[in-house]
Amino acid sequence: MTLEPVLAQIDADLTQSTDRLLELLRIQSISTDPAYKASCDSAADWLVDDLTSIGVKASKHKTPGHPMVVGHVGDSGPHVLFYGHYDVQPVDPIDLWDRDPFDPVVEDTAKGRVIRGRGSSDDKGQLMTFIEACRAWKAVHGTLPGQITFFFEGEEESGSPSLVPYMRENRDELTAEIALICDTGLFGDATPTIVTMLRGLLGEEITITGPDKDLHSGMYGGAAINPVRVLANIIAGLHDDTGRITVPRFYDGVHELSNSVRAQWEDLGFDQADFLGEVGLSEPAGEQDRSALEMIWSRPTCEVNGVWGGYTGDGFKTVLPSKASAKISFRLVGTQDPLEIREAFREMVRAQLPADCTVEFSDHGASPASQMATDNPAFEKARAALSDEWPNSAAYVGCGGSIPIAGYFKDILGMDAMLIGFGKDDDAIHSPNEKYDLSSFHKGIRSWARILDALNR
Amino acid sequence: MTLEPVLAQIDADLTQSTDRLLELLRIQSISTDPAYKASCDSAADWLVDDLTSIGVKASKHKTPGHPMVVGHVGDSGPHVLFYGHYDVQPVDPIDLWDRDPFDPVVEDTAKGRVIRGRGSSDDKGQLMTFIEACRAWKAVHGTLPGQITFFFEGEEESGSPSLVPYMRENRDELTAEIALICDTGLFGDATPTIVTMLRGLLGEEITITGPDKDLHSGMYGGAAINPVRVLANIIAGLHDDTGRITVPRFYDGVHELSNSVRAQWEDLGFDQADFLGEVGLSEPAGEQDRSALEMIWSRPTCEVNGVWGGYTGDGFKTVLPSKASAKISFRLVGTQDPLEIREAFREMVRAQLPADCTVEFSDHGASPASQMATDNPAFEKARAALSDEWPNSAAYVGCGGSIPIAGYFKDILGMDAMLIGFGKDDDAIHSPNEKYDLSSFHKGIRSWARILDALNR
Repeated sequence: MTLEPVLAQIDADLTQSTDRLLELLRIQSISTDPAYKASCDSAADWLVDDLTSIGVKASKHKTPGHPMVVGHVGDSGPHVLFYGHYDVQPVDPIDLWDRDPFDPVVEDTAKGRVIRGRGSSDDKGQLMTFIEACRAWKAVHGTLPGQITFFFEGEEESGSPSLVPYMRENRDELTAEIALICDTGLFGDATPTIVTMLRGLLGEEITITGPDKDLHSGMYGGAAINPVRVLANIIAGLHDDTGRITVPRFYDGVHELSNSVRAQWEDLGFDQADFLGEVGLSEPAGEQDRSALEMIWSRPTCEVNGVWGGYTGDGFKTVLPSKASAKISFRLVGTQDPLEIREAFREMVRAQLPADCTVEFSDHGASPASQMATDNPAFEKARAALSDEWPNSAAYVGCGGSIPIAGYFKDILGMDAMLIGFGKDDDAIHSPNEKYDLSSFHKGIRSWARILDALNR
Repeated sequence: MTLEPVLAQIDADLTQSTDRLLELLRIQSISTDPAYKASCDSAADWLVDDLTSIGVKASKHKTPGHPMVVGHVGDSGPHVLFYGHYDVQPVDPIDLWDRDPFDPVVEDTAKGRVIRGRGSSDDKGQLMTFIEACRAWKAVHGTLPGQITFFFEGEEESGSPSLVPYMRENRDELTAEIALICDTGLFGDATPTIVTMLRGLLGEEITITGPDKDLHSGMYGGAAINPVRVLANIIAGLHDDTGRITVPRFYDGVHELSNSVRAQWEDLGFDQADFLGEVGLSEPAGEQDRSALEMIWSRPTCEVNGVWGGYTGDGFKTVLPSKASAKISFRLVGTQDPLEIREAFREMVRAQLPADCTVEFSDHGASPASQMATDNPAFEKARAALSDEWPNSAAYVGCGGSIPIAGYFKDILGMDAMLIGFGKDDDAIHSPNEKYDLSSFHKGIRSWARILDALNR
């Protein structure tokens, strides 16, 4: 009878739990923009203080980038590591937000109450579900169950440059029996998930230079090479007519789904029309003959995340630009090798350069895809605990986004990772008006209490 | 013997003339950016005051955009209208300027003294050559030769939206016998020119929308259409493999050069390697089998002047953008019809839109090419006067840039226009570190004195 009073405490404390999350959301911890460095530091301090308040021995650790927060509690029993990230995405285009992204609020909406603000879902709200579960446990039992290591980073939204070196240097301190990661979502509104397939990510930035300065398009137009046209040709050539990516050897290591996994996914009743309809679309745009669910969970992709060159302000400027740039990312699956793909991509771009153009590449991270070992018994314990809390039974699913940390836990610390989260498809993470359902927050906290209980039986 | 003392006065007054130009250059009259509206107004006031100081009855006239400056002097003799523009291009990328674009200075360089600053060449420096010639004439003779109408606009760099309505409403006040326009350049360093062929300009801005908001490329990448990819395909498809523009019926009205004009251009000794080498290039990039001189003077072109979409800041953001945009311009020749080409371009874009994408078009001006009537005797008088001032004889040439005003003078006011200017290819107009050679300014002033003398004989 250790769980029920904890769940009751969670229910009773929800308003205070929410207020604490709003406080954390007010901290503008945008990791990719150096202007917000001090705010990232403040978010780390806030977490150290909050962990300390529930009896965790927590501290902030310097890195070449934003700091890590590490905490420990307990000295016997099952040992879990909980991971989350306190940094958030940039907020532009800011004019599409209905309110200040860093002035969060609980709002009533047609679909229920939501917590609105940058980071509410990705990942501050999710991270706090675990801390709040611990707080309730501590309030009821005076102690926390088993041994828990808390590990929060502040660079997840900017490629986690400090993470791998930090894990390598602090192997002993960070190793536990299993990692718990809260940065994923429900399937629909009622089905909790444990993500067992994660796509990798390769980020590249290319800048094409033609003339050595911006030119007058009247004086040079037609005679001088236009780097925007060169870049457009390169981008247009990245996919063939069937939607397949044309980088040489790109599909090496991409495997078809097993029949059993394919059947399990078909059982989920994924509504493709709904999924696309939510964002104003009607047709899947990727490889021919692949379902949208395959495209986002088990197929690799290539996307242009940003493009710029020449005059982009108000009005018109008849410039022939000197430079044109694009940020391009590849989502990877199976055993695709990010570094080989990077080289093949760069070779392909160089081969398309016309005379008088040069290209520069910048590296924005490279991580392979991950596949979880679901034969670890913790997976079935967690699945059952989640199924107790939510209307539908929990399912093992894929995830389109990249959470490279899961692979690092395995490769560097030898731990399996369970990816459990409570976000929803309409949370608008990385977009204006990001939100987290109050029900995700509340039932998320209750879910972690149930999982801690199950793992400690 | 009226000319010689005027030339002497010009030589004696050069330092003061330069100081007056520097004063005008300090006014930040960027017409395309609404933030500089008051500065455009100040530039107009400055010109009214300066014209008044040499006995011209001058005033500022409101328009829906930036004001016109109109001045009159003289009541008998040949009647010329002189046109220039007091607005300038934006200054970005500002970090490529070696000094504040609006803190102009006279600099010593390896190629001689230059006036450095935004607008020094385009068009404030050129405009002031005529005013300074008038000032010297007035100082020597106490009056100006013949009748002169001054007409300055402040919207040339932003498509001249108010110009045509203003000319239509003020036909009587603006009509003279011939228009003089100072917004063009020398051929090389020593050959003055009168431009007799001017390309037209069609400016279009397109915005492709896919998803109704920015998406997470992990969550939607592969399944949702990426508007940057759509835009890249459209841009890549605007030229075929031979460099020809693919807009349907685009080449209707494009004529081959006559043999005599072709021979005249060959005589100029245009150095293609030099022309391209000055901006870091080595090969002409336009239509196959056309010389660079043909490409910039007598062939139509299509250029992307700017492109943007998604995340373009520091670092990386794995966004799948909702929108992607481009500013695209067409240089037109012969009797190409800008409005027909606009429609054909828009139809072509719409035909390439995949399901789930929409496009919005914005109009950034449309003007046809112009061809001057060189049988007007004023052309030969001016050509002879220019030949007296410069090392080489003056030549009739083409111009790659668009100066739609020349066509308007003909169409609306029934006047021929002589385009005479003293800019150089390396003036970096529309680019960082714009300059105007002090010799262009000095000999430009002297050239106008000679032309006024010739036209009034």
